Amino acid sequence: MFAGDKLLRVPGPTPVPDRVARAAARPMLWHRSPEFVELFRRVEAGLKRLFETESDVLMIAGSGTAAMESAVANLLSPGEEAVVLNGGKFGERWLELVQAFGARPCEVKYPYGQGADPEALDAALSRHPGAKVVFATHNESSTAVLNDIEALAKVARAHGALIVVDAVSSLGGAPLPMDAWGIDVVVTGSQKCLMLPPGLSFVGVGPRAWEKAAESKGHRYYFDWKQYQRAAKNAESPYTSAVSLMFALDESLAMLQEEGAEARFDRHRLMRDMVRAGLKELGFTLFVEERWASPTLTAACGGGVDPEELRKAVRQKTGVTFAGGQGELKGRIFRIGHMGAATPLDMVTTLAAIEIGLAELGVDVTFGKGVGRALEVWKSWR
Amino acid sequence: MFAGDKLLRVPGPTPVPDRVARAAARPMLWHRSPEFVELFRRVEAGLKRLFETESDVLMIAGSGTAAMESAVANLLSPGEEAVVLNGGKFGERWLELVQAFGARPCEVKYPYGQGADPEALDAALSRHPGAKVVFATHNESSTAVLNDIEALAKVARAHGALIVVDAVSSLGGAPLPMDAWGIDVVVTGSQKCLMLPPGLSFVGVGPRAWEKAAESKGHRYYFDWKQYQRAAKNAESPYTSAVSLMFALDESLAMLQEEGAEARFDRHRLMRDMVRAGLKELGFTLFVEERWASPTLTAACGGGVDPEELRKAVRQKTGVTFAGGQGELKGRIFRIGHMGAATPLDMVTTLAAIEIGLAELGVDVTFGKGVGRALEVWKSWR
Repeated sequence: MFAGDKLLRVPGPTPVPDRVARAAARPMLWHRSPEFVELFRRVEAGLKRLFETESDVLMIAGSGTAAMESAVANLLSPGEEAVVLNGGKFGERWLELVQAFGARPCEVKYPYGQGADPEALDAALSRHPGAKVVFATHNESSTAVLNDIEALAKVARAHGALIVVDAVSSLGGAPLPMDAWGIDVVVTGSQKCLMLPPGLSFVGVGPRAWEKAAESKGHRYYFDWKQYQRAAKNAESPYTSAVSLMFALDESLAMLQEEGAEARFDRHRLMRDMVRAGLKELGFTLFVEERWASPTLTAACGGGVDPEELRKAVRQKTGVTFAGGQGELKGRIFRIGHMGAATPLDMVTTLAAIEIGLAELGVDVTFGKGVGRALEVWKSWR
Repeated sequence: MFAGDKLLRVPGPTPVPDRVARAAARPMLWHRSPEFVELFRRVEAGLKRLFETESDVLMIAGSGTAAMESAVANLLSPGEEAVVLNGGKFGERWLELVQAFGARPCEVKYPYGQGADPEALDAALSRHPGAKVVFATHNESSTAVLNDIEALAKVARAHGALIVVDAVSSLGGAPLPMDAWGIDVVVTGSQKCLMLPPGLSFVGVGPRAWEKAAESKGHRYYFDWKQYQRAAKNAESPYTSAVSLMFALDESLAMLQEEGAEARFDRHRLMRDMVRAGLKELGFTLFVEERWASPTLTAACGGGVDPEELRKAVRQKTGVTFAGGQGELKGRIFRIGHMGAATPLDMVTTLAAIEIGLAELGVDVTFGKGVGRALEVWKSWR
């Protein structure tokens, strides 16, 4: 099926707006030229606004996992204990990273489809007073859960521990004011709410994290934060910058700024509520309760169909692409991305595609039912 | 001065051809979709042709240094000895990487502006029988030296040691047949001879390197080769691929193939000889003797001018950008990049820009003298 190019409804990479794609195609710049200095300073300022921090935001050429690894390599020494909150594939990634660097994770598991419990974190930090860093996930994209980082950060703080937050699939789409919430490290990637191609990652590093990093003995070179901080003084990166992605970032930061943070967060909440209402109306079971429901993606199951068959039917007939479940959720849920450049009208086509997919699979669906419910949500949106 | 967009004559990033920039702007693809599988398989095959290997070529989102680090992290265990050939800033980078991962470098220094001596490597490996890996630089871009990797690889092989080659600024512009020369690991980056924006790096890993990596205890996660090999079986990367750079790579590999390897190597040699002849004619001193002269960049000094002032004057009057010296060569040389999408006609404008720059600095230059000499070289090119 001819699908145009706006039909990517996975939790990243997200569609890249034309403005951003054109910016990325600008003639190459030398990363040691005066023009690059201007670009660097402009995106640096835009990133600090985005992270809501007065501290440093470092740019690393690599995927979101690269930025996550940098936090582990800079903060932990081999043999050191650290608390890992794990409620999905990306919590698991923290666990694997901590192990890969020879540190000892104290795992706090929370159920798939639910948020991490601040009291459980409190208990874990009491049991492990040697653990001075907590690794958390803001938006667990394997389950579509948005965690209450404000509450978790308070608990970490009360124990004198740092908190490191994976916000790869949420920063820009959900509030996460780094300084106001006392978060020590925030990591994110380019290909989600920032509407860029993948390949650039970002790390906000607060003052307590800088202190801890100065003492840590983790092996690092490419990911050594100190080198990025030092180079940034001259508007440089220590290794060759991903220049074309920085052109794109410059444009996407301008777009984020034009819309404004509050309007952007609200648009993501509206898309979430439209998709959730439409799916429910069509007989699906939402995988996550409202209190933890992510504004950037939605996971669902049920509806009388196999999620993998639904994905296949939708893709074949309409060109719209959803993601399936990961790890132990494989074959049990499907996931719809609604972040970055997505709009409420895209939620209309998304739900229409699901209605078509259901009919393809023999379900007796009243066309327009899910879409109609979503439009009601939009109409009554505050 | 209005400079168009073809005037980047630094040793990378190099200008990105329009065909490649347009490819990078293609609509985003999901990295777990059938269309991505096709893309992955096509670039994988193209990379193997480029590396001239039957073994694996892994793609890592990151700069060339990322690929270098992957070699150190996968091959060495903490405390292990390794030989590092060091004749410039990028040899030094191997040294720093080996140290950062807790291994013990045995440094074999060679003079700036000269190539590494195979006999010195032989002696070092005899003195350090525990060292089972040699880290070498094919093209030392800080000095514009092309090393004789074929000879160095033979020496390493005779001692039962692996050889790892940094070919960041040469692969595609100078012959380096990985399998035929018995090279165990070749690393390169996207922004040099491959004519792509920076942000993607590549590692060719031969069978002996796989064996050594299986035993090594270096801390790694994002750079863990095994994960890349495993994911590649399904035409995936373990972490989100730099999709837009892979679109670009697909196009640039097609362009490399259209020209053909022999013609491409020859074009680079011709550009080298044109620039060297022109600079000599204008009274400059070439920093590197002919036997080690790099086909991808040229370093020079003298000419009765300060290299930094020349760079400034050329840039101001013509828009052409050269690089200066790095580290201890800062202020002592200037460097002209002639790799990737550069052509013999670009060498004409490059030399013309230098003639203008010399005149700006008050040198009594006969206009057309350097350019004319370069044209003679071109005319008589075999």
